[in-house]
Amino acid sequence: MLQVGINGYGTIGKRVAEAAELQDDMTVIGVTKTSPGHETADAESKFNLYGTTAEAVDTLREAGHDVTGDVGDLVEQADIIVDATPAGTGKDNKPIYQSHDTPAVFQGGEPADVADASFNSAANYSQARDADYVRVVSCNTTGLSRLISTLEVFGVSSVHATLIRRGGDPDQHGRGPINDIVLDPPSIPSHHSPDLRTIYPGIDICTHAVKVPMTLMHLQGVKVQLNGTPTEEEVIETIHESDRLACIPARSGIRGCAGIKEAAGDRGRARNDVWENCVWESSVAVDGNELHLYQAIHQEANVVPENIDAIRAVAAEKSQAESRQRTNDALGVGLEF
Amino acid sequence: MLQVGINGYGTIGKRVAEAAELQDDMTVIGVTKTSPGHETADAESKFNLYGTTAEAVDTLREAGHDVTGDVGDLVEQADIIVDATPAGTGKDNKPIYQSHDTPAVFQGGEPADVADASFNSAANYSQARDADYVRVVSCNTTGLSRLISTLEVFGVSSVHATLIRRGGDPDQHGRGPINDIVLDPPSIPSHHSPDLRTIYPGIDICTHAVKVPMTLMHLQGVKVQLNGTPTEEEVIETIHESDRLACIPARSGIRGCAGIKEAAGDRGRARNDVWENCVWESSVAVDGNELHLYQAIHQEANVVPENIDAIRAVAAEKSQAESRQRTNDALGVGLEF
Repeated sequence: MLQVGINGYGTIGKRVAEAAELQDDMTVIGVTKTSPGHETADAESKFNLYGTTAEAVDTLREAGHDVTGDVGDLVEQADIIVDATPAGTGKDNKPIYQSHDTPAVFQGGEPADVADASFNSAANYSQARDADYVRVVSCNTTGLSRLISTLEVFGVSSVHATLIRRGGDPDQHGRGPINDIVLDPPSIPSHHSPDLRTIYPGIDICTHAVKVPMTLMHLQGVKVQLNGTPTEEEVIETIHESDRLACIPARSGIRGCAGIKEAAGDRGRARNDVWENCVWESSVAVDGNELHLYQAIHQEANVVPENIDAIRAVAAEKSQAESRQRTNDALGVGLEF
Repeated sequence: MLQVGINGYGTIGKRVAEAAELQDDMTVIGVTKTSPGHETADAESKFNLYGTTAEAVDTLREAGHDVTGDVGDLVEQADIIVDATPAGTGKDNKPIYQSHDTPAVFQGGEPADVADASFNSAANYSQARDADYVRVVSCNTTGLSRLISTLEVFGVSSVHATLIRRGGDPDQHGRGPINDIVLDPPSIPSHHSPDLRTIYPGIDICTHAVKVPMTLMHLQGVKVQLNGTPTEEEVIETIHESDRLACIPARSGIRGCAGIKEAAGDRGRARNDVWENCVWESSVAVDGNELHLYQAIHQEANVVPENIDAIRAVAAEKSQAESRQRTNDALGVGLEF
């Protein structure tokens, strides 16, 4: 049984912690927080609570929390750490993991060189088998990686994607925008295409990114240049068969991101979470070897299955196929609309 | 075992259906839909599906759904109907219920005279014991009714509330506003205070209402003129003891509606639903016999416990206290932050 520590219990950390606990080959031995609040109360009710620093231990204890120790104590006991601290903080935590000889999974907000390999479980699981430190690419990059790996059966020569990003997560009320479309960044490409190339070095990729006043999901308008010339039906069928891509059929009546989350809630998904890329069937358009489609990506949830696979790739003797199947089965991946 | 039929399976209907199914003294014998879509697929997977009309039966069957019959067939077999059809439609359905001699619970979108009594389970449960047709008042009115009934221990002489309403439910992308604060209505009072007087005829009440570009919850800024002069601590303690009012403590760090729903999801609430009025402790301000506070009301969920109580009030031999306790226990009412 893998002993997993989660450093950082926010949007991603809490979801990865609960998902890891659902697997029968791993257990969460502790999670860290820096300061009190409703998420900390929730963490304490479900897991052993640690402070991200010695000061955090004091702060949390002063607020009345039952704190087991600091992050070093957690790392010492863990077989592997998932670092889900705020973007850019993970690289500063790496020396702690190294000093305890504990492997770690970082998130996409860290620079690529924090890790031995960038990771997407469909694309390059085996590369992570030899790594101590891997980085699960960001939600948008994970979404594109999954799509590319699915379409590779038709041969993918180039990808262009316009990412219409949510402004922030639901409770990030200070981020904005509040009534604008913001170039994010104002240069082209956005960071996503270089990031994707860490996984697909051989594919010509360019991404644009803007952000809008919405908190639900990201929307991606994607154009893919294929080597083959499949029909639209063949593309849809291939997406249907892909385990982490879900198809939105026209009969569902879903035309926006809120409908996807509404359906996820109706189907019993905790927090209305959507782990799958959601592809609108009606948007799939093929002209020769040019394919266009829309997919929505739930920024809070879609990297969760990949984090679980990354834990196994680094720290367990499980094959790619076995890990993906176990992750999917334990979580119930495979949303239908 | 009460045989409950749900006419209309949208935002409210699906929640009431699932909540009724969780009670051990009632069962849902069927739900109705008018047209296909992801909610209809969900309804069919959980309940016996009926059409709202004969035409709807044909439409749903043509779309491949397994339809048991039309609304008349459902009403005929039911001990009681919960009408959760779109606002204003319920009154047109009443003759169907009357022709089968079947009692019904209507929603707050119907005119008050559709029913023998307007209903809030804390305020006037016993009035509904003699009624065949009751109307659960709207989410905002239910929120104010609960607050008033809780504060009556201090004596309530008048209430003034400003309702900052969500623009629409999450998937209602066509409603707006998108970048405005809309007087809704532009006259004073809004419909809420006359509605509240159907429950509290003796209290001087005035409500203002505006709507804003947000879909999560309603926010109510409330001023209550009390007869007594409690301390702020006494008010907070009284709210803590009230079963369907939840307190948001300062230590939670929650400063908006998204934080409430985030916490609800973290605590395992399906669809992030919040059945309780959520009162910010830090907002409770008392000056002599004048009390001010903020409370948030989840428009999709807060009338659900009241619908379950209304079913029992009309169709079962259960006391107010017993019904409320059963409803609370079966759902898990009592959110803590």
